[in-house]
Amino acid sequence: MALNKKPVHGMRDILPEEMEIREYVQSVIRDTYRQFGFTTIETPCMESIANLTSKQGGDNEKLIFKVLKRGEKLNVAQAATEEDVVDFGMRYDLTVPLVRYYACNAANLPSPFKALQMGSVWRADRPQKGRYRQFMQCDIDIFGEPSNLAEIELILATTTTLGKLGFKGFEIRINDRQILKAMAAYSGFAQDAYDSVFITLDKMDKIGLDGVEAELLEKGFDKNCVDKYLTLYQELARQEDGVAYLADTLKDVLEPEVSEGLQEIISSVNATKTADFKLVFDATLVRGMSYYTGTIYEISMPQFGAACGGGGRYDRMVGKFTGQDVPACGFSIGFERIILLLMENGFKVPGQPKKMAYLVEKGVGGQTLCEIIAKAQAARREGSQVLVARMNKNKKFQKEQLTAEGYEEFVEFYRETLKN
Amino acid sequence: MALNKKPVHGMRDILPEEMEIREYVQSVIRDTYRQFGFTTIETPCMESIANLTSKQGGDNEKLIFKVLKRGEKLNVAQAATEEDVVDFGMRYDLTVPLVRYYACNAANLPSPFKALQMGSVWRADRPQKGRYRQFMQCDIDIFGEPSNLAEIELILATTTTLGKLGFKGFEIRINDRQILKAMAAYSGFAQDAYDSVFITLDKMDKIGLDGVEAELLEKGFDKNCVDKYLTLYQELARQEDGVAYLADTLKDVLEPEVSEGLQEIISSVNATKTADFKLVFDATLVRGMSYYTGTIYEISMPQFGAACGGGGRYDRMVGKFTGQDVPACGFSIGFERIILLLMENGFKVPGQPKKMAYLVEKGVGGQTLCEIIAKAQAARREGSQVLVARMNKNKKFQKEQLTAEGYEEFVEFYRETLKN
Repeated sequence: MALNKKPVHGMRDILPEEMEIREYVQSVIRDTYRQFGFTTIETPCMESIANLTSKQGGDNEKLIFKVLKRGEKLNVAQAATEEDVVDFGMRYDLTVPLVRYYACNAANLPSPFKALQMGSVWRADRPQKGRYRQFMQCDIDIFGEPSNLAEIELILATTTTLGKLGFKGFEIRINDRQILKAMAAYSGFAQDAYDSVFITLDKMDKIGLDGVEAELLEKGFDKNCVDKYLTLYQELARQEDGVAYLADTLKDVLEPEVSEGLQEIISSVNATKTADFKLVFDATLVRGMSYYTGTIYEISMPQFGAACGGGGRYDRMVGKFTGQDVPACGFSIGFERIILLLMENGFKVPGQPKKMAYLVEKGVGGQTLCEIIAKAQAARREGSQVLVARMNKNKKFQKEQLTAEGYEEFVEFYRETLKN
Repeated sequence: MALNKKPVHGMRDILPEEMEIREYVQSVIRDTYRQFGFTTIETPCMESIANLTSKQGGDNEKLIFKVLKRGEKLNVAQAATEEDVVDFGMRYDLTVPLVRYYACNAANLPSPFKALQMGSVWRADRPQKGRYRQFMQCDIDIFGEPSNLAEIELILATTTTLGKLGFKGFEIRINDRQILKAMAAYSGFAQDAYDSVFITLDKMDKIGLDGVEAELLEKGFDKNCVDKYLTLYQELARQEDGVAYLADTLKDVLEPEVSEGLQEIISSVNATKTADFKLVFDATLVRGMSYYTGTIYEISMPQFGAACGGGGRYDRMVGKFTGQDVPACGFSIGFERIILLLMENGFKVPGQPKKMAYLVEKGVGGQTLCEIIAKAQAARREGSQVLVARMNKNKKFQKEQLTAEGYEEFVEFYRETLKN
């Protein structure tokens, strides 16, 4: 009965070397976020299929691993559609479960509630290099904080963590959905066209100003609107202080609180940050998820093409569960990308204990074995990592393997005499 | 569109207070096992349904959460049975995935390979108080170590961990499947009756010697066999050294290596242990899983009726995947039970940082806000946990909530003057 040795398609086993780095990164994340007052929470990996298909998840809702009903509720032979045989699904992100958690437990949670989540999510995507169907997400979120203190704390906590992991010289780009909308309104686009305009704008870094212009025209938008819109972006590129420029230019369509709040986030973070990075305004930043209602931000790493994390404000999602909106703001680190970057750069976990291997010849037992183990126990109490193992026939190969695993000191014990 | 606020049936959200204890326990487990040379590994939460239904999992195979096929592979309308619509399943334990992992990755793993796994498993059991359909398991396993050094290291590592968590005065009971078999053989039971005899024997602690006798006779076993079997257990209860007694009595049906090996485990562990517990021989210990081939052991906590963890040797499971057997031995801690015990006893996580809350009046911004945040950042650098939050309208209630969360110091900042 030969079984299948491989992990299921698109998922993977994690080897000890990578696990060591993952655990270290998780502990840095946990300790740093805790210093900012975030508390860890956990939700089940499964959610009811109704919650997962409520249109909060965008395209991710097409990628759900669905869970079969059980017992009497299941009748495969008579079922006509998926709905007949499925009741749960694997979560595709940590945001929908968090919002459900908050709606369910709000009475027992403080205000503001600052949550840290590290957990696996599943997406039945086409597997690619470095992209798997089960992967870790790491989110922080603040519920019940309407002011921009939420954004400031989220950005400081995230960047302090990245700094402790050795990342530097990166950028956080920030924008606000209300600025995006005001720019579109100012240019004369109709409100129901905004989403389509933003989808094209989102390609700015790939296709440039000319590409955006061509695509907007191709979509059939009025040439005057498109010209006015792009002139705004051209002007903006020439400004020292883009937010101030827009506050003035868009004053008829943009609340002053929005630009003032954004200015305050940028100046507070840049004045109090501990990591080596810059928080900059970028009016081309769109971010896909339609649930964002205010600020949006993204981490740009020079070493990495795509974004390495991001987030924003989503003040109207809790209301979907409870009927009453609660201010909410989050920041997600691209955990798997960060691990990949660290691995590629040969990252070594700092502060590891001394690793010793005691190799015991076959047949050593009784009182002698007791003494060997007592010795190992004493070394462990002093903080060393001690492996006690039988000596293999091919001792040389065994020591080579252990050396590759980081063992620095070998002690060999034989039947006749105890050589050290 | 009101969504479902509750977690899916039988699963649960974990609140911050419990999470803090869970994370602490996990860190103690990880650090302690690492000192014994165990390395953490991780496998996907899903396995192919064929691997999960290969008869290694016993009754757990009836409790699998099954995952629906996706895309073109799925045709619900034409499906007749579950097999037609399912390809993966959620793992119900960490042993089957570990064995698959070892079979898949052995070429890149050292010998012996000492693995630590902490991960969720899923069982579609009837939910009960304190028993959920998603729960954490915590296993250590050693592959490639045929000698009893494996058992000694597993028991020492597990008990050292329990000791660090404050558990004391507990017992580890140990037995060997080969002793169980030899006792049955000596009493005259037929080999194919062993499993049935052991199922009854397993109830000894509940129904006593008389109950076991009655049930064996009821099952139709020969009275002479039953008498001889129970006399053996009665004799054993009178012995100082049960293993020595059995080694002598069963010498025609029991290899001397088995009893000698067991003696050595008991004496080595009791001589070198760091926690306050006793390792004792118990010939009535059976343990359910049919895959065990040698030693078996279980943690008995006086505070807890049922076992709080256990394990044993299973030398013939890797061969199911690879065709070639590899010595294997494991020990699983009852993670959820341990958390429950700690919570019930009001356990407090030691070494927590000082928790301070900065409450900032609405409207405080600009340079003043910068200064407040800079102050918080400085306190964080010195190791404190600092929450910076807007002052709620009901400040008294906010402070009460935060006090309940462990915040000890409050600093309030107002628009007009900065009072400290």
